[in-house]
Amino acid sequence: MKIYQKPTRDQWSKILERPAQKSSTVRKIVKPILKQVKKKGDTALRRFAKEYDQVDLKQLAVSNEELKAASSQVKPELKDAIKRAYDNIKKFHEAQAQAELILETSPGITCRRKSVAIQKVGLYVPGGTAPLFSTVLMLGIPAKIAGCNEIIICTPTDHLAAINPAILYSASLIGIDKIYKVGGAQAIAAMAYGTESIPAVDKIFGPGNQYVTVAKQMVSQKGTAIDMPAGPSEVAVYADDSSDADFVASDLLSQAEHGPDSQVILVSTSKAKIDETLAAVKKQLADLPRKEIAAKALTHSRAIYLKSREEAIDLLNEYAAEHLILSTDDADEVADQIINAGSVFVGHYTPESAGDYASGTNHTLPTYGYARSYSGVSLDSFVKKITFQRITKKGLKDLGPSIEYMAAAENLHAHKEAVSIRLRKLAK
Amino acid sequence: MKIYQKPTRDQWSKILERPAQKSSTVRKIVKPILKQVKKKGDTALRRFAKEYDQVDLKQLAVSNEELKAASSQVKPELKDAIKRAYDNIKKFHEAQAQAELILETSPGITCRRKSVAIQKVGLYVPGGTAPLFSTVLMLGIPAKIAGCNEIIICTPTDHLAAINPAILYSASLIGIDKIYKVGGAQAIAAMAYGTESIPAVDKIFGPGNQYVTVAKQMVSQKGTAIDMPAGPSEVAVYADDSSDADFVASDLLSQAEHGPDSQVILVSTSKAKIDETLAAVKKQLADLPRKEIAAKALTHSRAIYLKSREEAIDLLNEYAAEHLILSTDDADEVADQIINAGSVFVGHYTPESAGDYASGTNHTLPTYGYARSYSGVSLDSFVKKITFQRITKKGLKDLGPSIEYMAAAENLHAHKEAVSIRLRKLAK
Repeated sequence: MKIYQKPTRDQWSKILERPAQKSSTVRKIVKPILKQVKKKGDTALRRFAKEYDQVDLKQLAVSNEELKAASSQVKPELKDAIKRAYDNIKKFHEAQAQAELILETSPGITCRRKSVAIQKVGLYVPGGTAPLFSTVLMLGIPAKIAGCNEIIICTPTDHLAAINPAILYSASLIGIDKIYKVGGAQAIAAMAYGTESIPAVDKIFGPGNQYVTVAKQMVSQKGTAIDMPAGPSEVAVYADDSSDADFVASDLLSQAEHGPDSQVILVSTSKAKIDETLAAVKKQLADLPRKEIAAKALTHSRAIYLKSREEAIDLLNEYAAEHLILSTDDADEVADQIINAGSVFVGHYTPESAGDYASGTNHTLPTYGYARSYSGVSLDSFVKKITFQRITKKGLKDLGPSIEYMAAAENLHAHKEAVSIRLRKLAK
Repeated sequence: MKIYQKPTRDQWSKILERPAQKSSTVRKIVKPILKQVKKKGDTALRRFAKEYDQVDLKQLAVSNEELKAASSQVKPELKDAIKRAYDNIKKFHEAQAQAELILETSPGITCRRKSVAIQKVGLYVPGGTAPLFSTVLMLGIPAKIAGCNEIIICTPTDHLAAINPAILYSASLIGIDKIYKVGGAQAIAAMAYGTESIPAVDKIFGPGNQYVTVAKQMVSQKGTAIDMPAGPSEVAVYADDSSDADFVASDLLSQAEHGPDSQVILVSTSKAKIDETLAAVKKQLADLPRKEIAAKALTHSRAIYLKSREEAIDLLNEYAAEHLILSTDDADEVADQIINAGSVFVGHYTPESAGDYASGTNHTLPTYGYARSYSGVSLDSFVKKITFQRITKKGLKDLGPSIEYMAAAENLHAHKEAVSIRLRKLAK
């Protein structure tokens, strides 16, 4: 980890810079994949499965038998854990529901705003070395609460055409049974355009590698909505003299193990705590199964020593971390001043892992500085809010002339006339 | 207008197709503009003003004197109208504020979700033949309510380097004084990258021509958020035997006058009402100042006759109109069944113009079918929602083992260890 000592404010943006996203090479690979799926549908999906994963897929859809079998393959302890996570996530996301807003803005003018579920949503769940069944929970639960009509999952298989049973179990628990054995950019294409087996959806959610990310970005330019733009996962930890260096080190490493491009930033008002933490990182790293990945991520990670808490908060707000951990006795006070972050973990006993899995908050969060303007996934992500208005004859008589003036001043006379023609009839 | 008689369901998607958005030519023009502004800042903006608008801009920022002068140039009647619209829009958007959500999902696990203003926002306001001061209201009011720290407006000038006084007056009324004389793709670039005069923003809002639209799309791929993707403006009107053909015709025309690419769709269960309406359109069109624009839009507009109201509702939901007008005695009943639309105008005396200007709802709405998954601009658009969580020692003792199981099952051992290390300390 590179250490920065009391950098001046004008140096911050350079220090906090994220790695440039070079997507043009990836786009060149993804573009023909999208095209093939659009053109050839299931045939293309089967061909890609053979080519990339050496799998011969007869059925793209997971069968009822497979779903049932999965349940018996998941250990009871894991089932209980998933069930606890499910309960917490469900509670927190149910509480996000908004009642319909109905307001008479002027006499006779009633405006409404109502949340309506996005009808068809597609959830992408990565497989591979980290089979993210937690993502099934984080996306599937709010989709169900929102009342989406059609919820489908695409996830890659292993070389035996099987999906990790915890993924299937989690989907069953939520009540999602349309699961398709497709991964990568081709899965995104299938959900955007539809194939013989896989229905096209209105919005695509979920994390993935750079091919998945670029494919999502590309289809989002052509009518399919996506949850949010994505970059490498990241954490910023704020530590001071009150922090437990071992805890902080474990938090930094839990981010670093995600991938070699993970971003890890330690910000501290205590020089001693930085040294102590880095020593603890070194020690803990040695025991990790994914230590090579974590070590790579650490090479471009940064520890920043600043002289005051105020400065530290300003810097953290400038960075706008996906995950922000406040490892201090004064965590609540600091939390109140955070204006840019995806999710904030407050206090010594609140590791990021809690939010990644089971506390109830969503783990699909804005990376790459997008936390300045984007929210993480929530119930909101699965609805759109439609406005309605109803105007009485009296209401239009009253407000109509104002509309006429404004429309005329914008040189939009047909807009004015739509009011005038009604007022003339009312005057009769 | 082309008339379709009882098309079968499998014909609908073809009939409802929007014109293909061919952006590649526009991209080629916009790309170097973005690059120039990024590189040369104000110098590039001044050069473009000279080149495209034949204006010699000394100051890019509107001065206090100009702002003051504008107020005296707006007629009292228009001021009153703007003030009425302001009040309604403010009321409806203030009512959209969400209280902080605080929930103990499990004993010792407290999750929170708080709306925090996006710090820096840029509003693009088109000038030209239709000086859209209404857009200043629709974007500026919620930005102010949200509490955005920095709100700027970019808008093009006329050939005398002046901005329409109603635009300046509306901005003053809201309390926005950072207004810059820049239009087109170069304005979007300035707000995305920042120049010597114009600060970079986190999110850009506002309508515009195809260059503005494409520029927004391009900068949104590189870190700056935008309000929503945009296509040509559109209306769908549902009419039956109870409709007033003159009213319906005026609504169709108020959409058609927006631009030659405007989309206008009439859906009716009454063949007679379609004929009557088309006759009224022809008659009203003759008197419109923008009749040439409207006539062009009408050439690719469609009237669709369907046999039942149920079918009509299904078709309208499939189309997902930006504006949907329900011109029927049973408008409330129909409104309840609408699941895809930007904003819905309910009943005979609720023209689209009301929502465009003054009823209180926002007029920045999803076009091109995006209403299936996107909401219109609202207070939500100017905030992000940050989640927070705090876990007590007891809470972690209780939930920790579930997190450990799940992390281990996803092969993310450092995630598990961040919990284990804390539990070990608690066990001591």
